[in-house]
Amino acid sequence: MNPTRALNYARSRRGEFVSELKEFLRIPSVSSQPQRRADVKKCAHWLARHLQDIGLERVRVIATRGNPIVYASWLRAPERPTLIIYGHYDVLPGEPISEWRTPPFSPTVKGQDLYARGAADDKGQLFCHVKAMECYLRTTHALPVNVRCIFEGEEEIGSTHLLPLIERNKNALRADAAVISDTKMLGPGRPAIGYAQRGGLRAEIEVRGPSQELHSGTFGGAVLNPVQAACEIVAGLHNDRGRVTIPGFYDDVCNWSEKERAYMARTGPSDDKILKEAGVRQGWGESGYTLYERTTIRPALTLNGIAGGHYGAGVKGVIPTSAIIKLSFRLVPGQNPNRVGKLFREHIARTTPPGIETTVKLLSPVQPALVDRKHPAVRAAAFAYKKGFGASPVFLRSGGSIPVVNAFKESLGIPTALMGFGLPDDRIHAPNEKFHLPNFYRGIETSIWFLAAAAGALRRSTSAGRAVKLRKGWTV
Amino acid sequence: MNPTRALNYARSRRGEFVSELKEFLRIPSVSSQPQRRADVKKCAHWLARHLQDIGLERVRVIATRGNPIVYASWLRAPERPTLIIYGHYDVLPGEPISEWRTPPFSPTVKGQDLYARGAADDKGQLFCHVKAMECYLRTTHALPVNVRCIFEGEEEIGSTHLLPLIERNKNALRADAAVISDTKMLGPGRPAIGYAQRGGLRAEIEVRGPSQELHSGTFGGAVLNPVQAACEIVAGLHNDRGRVTIPGFYDDVCNWSEKERAYMARTGPSDDKILKEAGVRQGWGESGYTLYERTTIRPALTLNGIAGGHYGAGVKGVIPTSAIIKLSFRLVPGQNPNRVGKLFREHIARTTPPGIETTVKLLSPVQPALVDRKHPAVRAAAFAYKKGFGASPVFLRSGGSIPVVNAFKESLGIPTALMGFGLPDDRIHAPNEKFHLPNFYRGIETSIWFLAAAAGALRRSTSAGRAVKLRKGWTV
Repeated sequence: MNPTRALNYARSRRGEFVSELKEFLRIPSVSSQPQRRADVKKCAHWLARHLQDIGLERVRVIATRGNPIVYASWLRAPERPTLIIYGHYDVLPGEPISEWRTPPFSPTVKGQDLYARGAADDKGQLFCHVKAMECYLRTTHALPVNVRCIFEGEEEIGSTHLLPLIERNKNALRADAAVISDTKMLGPGRPAIGYAQRGGLRAEIEVRGPSQELHSGTFGGAVLNPVQAACEIVAGLHNDRGRVTIPGFYDDVCNWSEKERAYMARTGPSDDKILKEAGVRQGWGESGYTLYERTTIRPALTLNGIAGGHYGAGVKGVIPTSAIIKLSFRLVPGQNPNRVGKLFREHIARTTPPGIETTVKLLSPVQPALVDRKHPAVRAAAFAYKKGFGASPVFLRSGGSIPVVNAFKESLGIPTALMGFGLPDDRIHAPNEKFHLPNFYRGIETSIWFLAAAAGALRRSTSAGRAVKLRKGWTV
Repeated sequence: MNPTRALNYARSRRGEFVSELKEFLRIPSVSSQPQRRADVKKCAHWLARHLQDIGLERVRVIATRGNPIVYASWLRAPERPTLIIYGHYDVLPGEPISEWRTPPFSPTVKGQDLYARGAADDKGQLFCHVKAMECYLRTTHALPVNVRCIFEGEEEIGSTHLLPLIERNKNALRADAAVISDTKMLGPGRPAIGYAQRGGLRAEIEVRGPSQELHSGTFGGAVLNPVQAACEIVAGLHNDRGRVTIPGFYDDVCNWSEKERAYMARTGPSDDKILKEAGVRQGWGESGYTLYERTTIRPALTLNGIAGGHYGAGVKGVIPTSAIIKLSFRLVPGQNPNRVGKLFREHIARTTPPGIETTVKLLSPVQPALVDRKHPAVRAAAFAYKKGFGASPVFLRSGGSIPVVNAFKESLGIPTALMGFGLPDDRIHAPNEKFHLPNFYRGIETSIWFLAAAAGALRRSTSAGRAVKLRKGWTV
């Protein structure tokens, strides 16, 4: 199917597409805040209605015990391959609100950027594919490939309900490949395809001391303080070479060949670039690895938050009763989040000082994932980028986690093309998150090219059972 | 002056006195919360009006740059000694409110106890003296001694404005002794006179990392985390033998004789009693000292609170930007809070890891204080306890700090009788603070006896220049 009419349509509708994206971004679909539950649901229904409007079929809002999954498909070409397009409509909280220059749920265009929570992660990127499909359906009334859309509302909290749903419905969801746009390019005009994602595991430790607050004069020096104990437990999680001290933590970590590490050094960001993106002057972490390696092929344990005792305005001379620690692991190929959770529990129990009680809660286990860089779906993505952005992509590992990538591989046996349209300075998960509008427009065009290219590449691949090199041009 | 009429009056007015105390407790005069500033002022004016009503003279609400000081006097007996009665009308915050069985500023009598923030610390104890003076003034229209009342509104935040005011007005405030009821007895019917107070110093450390929150996937493992750094700094403040690691911290600490330590062991609470009061199963702290010693003759560093990153409901996979640590020192004779502050600042600067910035704020320096157990004012207090509670007091060191005790000694050259009416289970500084009503009634009677006894004891002492043993009976 020739994408010309779809591309022309895309170019003529940019204003409308931005308006629709703003409407999508205005719904505060924060999955980690119970009080936003209704907004998350509202967002799912908004998205479903939108998919219906553009001509997708079998649109459903699938209820789960958590947030709903929005499903839609177009399966009118039985002889062609089937692609899963995955994205997530849930977002992180806007907090700390005061650090936003414009409110997180009042999408605002400034220059070439659209500011809002979720602009890049992931509503804007998800919308590239939605709009690409619209462009085909409005012009040629068909898609180049069969498509199943799976848009979930719990990616930021570990995809708890999607992963078992995929496993239970693996026959119904049969497909030849998946595509996800929820990652970053190297920079403007420098596309990148992800081929590795870290896994993850989140933990909360509650540290309890005296059953009531104690006067620090009367008891200071005689009673162990849960805030102090919490700090000592946290301080004991890393050694002075930046390594996690949990016994057995590194046992299963894959060691990569010198060849792979050399490839990474060639294609990946330098230490300087990573520091600049982070806005910090110096790096930290496990010695013997570059910062790119530390954030991709090496696991990490990050403190997300801590609180205990009196930390508001004013002073209060007390020994507090408790403290809470929130942290998250990023895990790498070889590691299993359930095993890491077990080792972590044992370690915390062992390092809890006498007189203090700790409770560990583990959440959102996510398996690490790897994608074969030579798979036809990945080659189709590379081809599409070249058409959409005018540049060949580099292949990058990502430090983040998209829980579903591993489920697609394990449950459905298909690879995922991680075709990101975000930029390094999009501030995802941070105040003033944005999406670069030229990337939105090019993302739509890239998706239009990708759907066309995948039709050829995947057909050959599934029929022949082996990888096929793409010819130049969109008809393959 | 025979206290019989005053004592009879006191016994006949208990109901009214409790009602008035409840009115006093209803005003949320929290000195550490800026939003309570108006309530603190309201409380000062309430107290001043009350002192006026009962017949005290020269009543003034002295404005300071902080909270006002309420002053009143009765100086109509030039041939008699002069006593300073000190107390504080400010209280700690009620937070955490949810842990109170009745609201902290809705005083509630249950059984023999009056529950409210400030019930024991210090409104209830202060009120014992106010009511004792009322009993004399309503019946005999005179007090046995001259009195200057100094009731401040900043004791819980270090008496910042009172201490220089005393130093500047040391001639105007001349007196022969001071009395403060802001300490505890050993138990019901077991009075105790304080003869040592720890000093103090409060500190806040702000720990700053990246200028904006960073995605923990993208940067986890490559950037030092300010929450982790804060925990490491805190963990480094004590060694594994419970000692503070700040170099030079113990240099000036007084070492007490075996005789004094034996006296303390005889009179002071056992480890078991202290653990029971704290409601914890095991002690902690500097080895080689009993828990009573650790909380009185040994300095302590207590974490009061910590906060950083995302600690509310839900998860947020970020590297936070900053953390705040609140802590307080309790210092002992020999130590100087300003020197400790300097050592602390240097230590934090030295232990701040590269890539992290820390700012240290020091607040509320308080000198440690000691009182001569043989001073006539102290003997008068012992006599009064015996009359009021029917038992001789023991002499105790306190782990807490009353900043003004040292100022009375240094600026005015007078000792302070630390005559507490609180009980170990009064939960001062904690939720469900209470004052035991029988102690309120007996406290008033003890104060009536004390004023009478002080008249004789201090007159002889100041004229003769030496201590005099009190005879049995109130005329000495």
